[in-house]
Amino acid sequence: MDRIAPDLAELAARLFEDLRAAHHDGVGITRETYGAGETAAMRRVAALARQAGLTTAWDAAANLRISLPGTDPRLPAAACGSHLDSVPQGGNFDGAAGVIAGLLALLAAQRAGPRPRTLLLLVMRGEESAWYGRPYLGSSALFGGFDPKWLDLPCLQDSSRKLREAMAGEGAEVATIAAGTRLLDPATISHFVELHIEQGPVMVARGVPVGLVSGIRGNFRHPAARCLGEAAHSGAVPRWLRRDAVLGAADLAMRLDASWRTLLERGEDLVMTFGIFTTDPREHAMTRVPGEVRFTLEYRSESEATLQDFLELAESEAAEVARERRVKIELGPAVRTPPAVMDARLLALAQRLCTAGGLAHEVLASGAGHDAAIFANAGVPSAMVFIRNEHGSHNPHEAMEMDDFLEGAAVLQALLLQGAEAVGR
Amino acid sequence: MDRIAPDLAELAARLFEDLRAAHHDGVGITRETYGAGETAAMRRVAALARQAGLTTAWDAAANLRISLPGTDPRLPAAACGSHLDSVPQGGNFDGAAGVIAGLLALLAAQRAGPRPRTLLLLVMRGEESAWYGRPYLGSSALFGGFDPKWLDLPCLQDSSRKLREAMAGEGAEVATIAAGTRLLDPATISHFVELHIEQGPVMVARGVPVGLVSGIRGNFRHPAARCLGEAAHSGAVPRWLRRDAVLGAADLAMRLDASWRTLLERGEDLVMTFGIFTTDPREHAMTRVPGEVRFTLEYRSESEATLQDFLELAESEAAEVARERRVKIELGPAVRTPPAVMDARLLALAQRLCTAGGLAHEVLASGAGHDAAIFANAGVPSAMVFIRNEHGSHNPHEAMEMDDFLEGAAVLQALLLQGAEAVGR
Repeated sequence: MDRIAPDLAELAARLFEDLRAAHHDGVGITRETYGAGETAAMRRVAALARQAGLTTAWDAAANLRISLPGTDPRLPAAACGSHLDSVPQGGNFDGAAGVIAGLLALLAAQRAGPRPRTLLLLVMRGEESAWYGRPYLGSSALFGGFDPKWLDLPCLQDSSRKLREAMAGEGAEVATIAAGTRLLDPATISHFVELHIEQGPVMVARGVPVGLVSGIRGNFRHPAARCLGEAAHSGAVPRWLRRDAVLGAADLAMRLDASWRTLLERGEDLVMTFGIFTTDPREHAMTRVPGEVRFTLEYRSESEATLQDFLELAESEAAEVARERRVKIELGPAVRTPPAVMDARLLALAQRLCTAGGLAHEVLASGAGHDAAIFANAGVPSAMVFIRNEHGSHNPHEAMEMDDFLEGAAVLQALLLQGAEAVGR
Repeated sequence: MDRIAPDLAELAARLFEDLRAAHHDGVGITRETYGAGETAAMRRVAALARQAGLTTAWDAAANLRISLPGTDPRLPAAACGSHLDSVPQGGNFDGAAGVIAGLLALLAAQRAGPRPRTLLLLVMRGEESAWYGRPYLGSSALFGGFDPKWLDLPCLQDSSRKLREAMAGEGAEVATIAAGTRLLDPATISHFVELHIEQGPVMVARGVPVGLVSGIRGNFRHPAARCLGEAAHSGAVPRWLRRDAVLGAADLAMRLDASWRTLLERGEDLVMTFGIFTTDPREHAMTRVPGEVRFTLEYRSESEATLQDFLELAESEAAEVARERRVKIELGPAVRTPPAVMDARLLALAQRLCTAGGLAHEVLASGAGHDAAIFANAGVPSAMVFIRNEHGSHNPHEAMEMDDFLEGAAVLQALLLQGAEAVGR
């Protein structure tokens, strides 16, 4: 595994700084989806690539495609990529780290001289859902999976603007996208690799600079669950006559927490969150037995079987609590997003590369979604490399160290060059 | 124990109907504290009493005092009473049942001929806190316990009016009350008995028409408790790195619920309520590990020792949860209202009377507060008789049966006549 050359490391540092300077909004970094900020950042990267002699092109979704053509055009291209949009007042590294690492990989390969396989860097539009409520707009369009209904989504930050106009404004061919035309044939790509900062705290807690992603968690969501009891005088109703909605919902939360712990001990991948949990502000009071709790329940796993098991567990525990506490618990139907499995051969290759290079690493699941999930679910063998990052993402306090980035970028570069052989494409 | 005479039963039924007709507001019954409704109801009762030859007087707090003078004015008077104000759109029986039962007792005693001890019916002002945020205004004034600060309380239903003006408007001598002048010497009262509808569901559930009150629960309240964790990405943070505020607060609720059950099994009197329980609406989301839960915790018991024990239990469980789940739990100081113990000799007398009369009854704690608590805490031996009532109180659906009322009124009458001997005053 080759290390990143010092001048390319300098180029990367400069590019991160240029992007930060250009898109700092006073609080954090803002590069809006299908907007001026995202486009400006993409043009900056495209200009650098062209100066260096790489080929650039924009597709019908206004995604940017940077390529280093190989000598044998019949071979499927090895691809990497990420995104350049950010949430409002976000950080500089979420997305941009993967794009810059990809650029370094292509530039390093260019120096090493001609090779048979074309290398691709895809800079994809609209990965963040903060702007139009839907993530992966550009990568979905790549494989014909862009739902035409999304065109009517209003901008969450400025509802006078719809996605349709925003896309057209940045050069996308809206009719082509709406028709579900595939912009990239998965068969023409040998494999896809994405580098990204970790958005959770695991790697900082474990002290490892590089993470190798085993899968991108899918999730089941219950956005409008309720526990219904009976409001009553807090002083005059004894325990045996109560139907207390808070105790009902709390009981469910504790039972599912205990099951969660058990599943983790068995080695299953799972996270569970009651993000919203609230008595009814129109009628709750200190001296009133609560009659209703609204809550959300979300669980995520790399394994769809685990999600299905947990759904059944939640339903059966809810029924048990309802019976024991004389309340009604309505979870409502689960809104499902399937997990995306990263390619086991690419993961094994990445582990071998890190071990051989003496690089501390750890295999972990990605809890957040990524464009790589779209590639994996389109049938492209995919891999992800995480970089240690403090304070999570989607905030101005993202803290990725350049040394960690360069270690991860070296892994990405090796995976891009050696991955096709590992997957036999 | 003498039953209520048929003509007095008819008088009671008519009086309930008159009050209902006079104070129905289209939805429920409204007789405002220190207002026209309360005063009109009191005047109606006073007029009936005077017609029947009883003595009526108004004290400095504009409470009504109806008396049947005894032949030996040196003996402390036997007293009963309740209130005639209601919450807005409330029911017809909360308060009025006790006043009408007292009137029947005095009229029956009058028929039975002269007796040494004076009998008193006290119709007290402002028992309901719905109007000025403070309950027991009239009974507090009786014993000099009216806090002068209360005079500046605005009416919760019409903030342009203050309690001071309302009191003056209904004939109270505000300066006398503000000075803390005692209007009634506890030593001049042998004992006090109050009849009231039950405001909880216990007697309907148990199928008993008459309840004998062992005590009026005090309470400890934590009106602004919080569980503080750390907000985080719901997908990217594993269980071992979370500080989940909902799971922390739910854990506390489940632990205290288990302790509550244990204390009940040991025979302690206790109710516990988390009436408000809510994630922060400004930042909660389905995909965010909740960083904060605000909640209230209230527990009530007849026993101050039980309240103190439960407080210590809550604090120690909160500390345990905080340690185990890496959250911070702030219960805040407890706001304390002491319990009022009903006189054991009067309770035993009431039990003997019911048993001898073949009357199904049950001893229970009062979860709601009553004027009787003010008498008990002023040193007057006190008793309360509850009447079965469906649908709780403070709503138009109060449902007391006249047959149940007459059974209870007979118990009240016997307690009024025989109670002084039981307590040796």
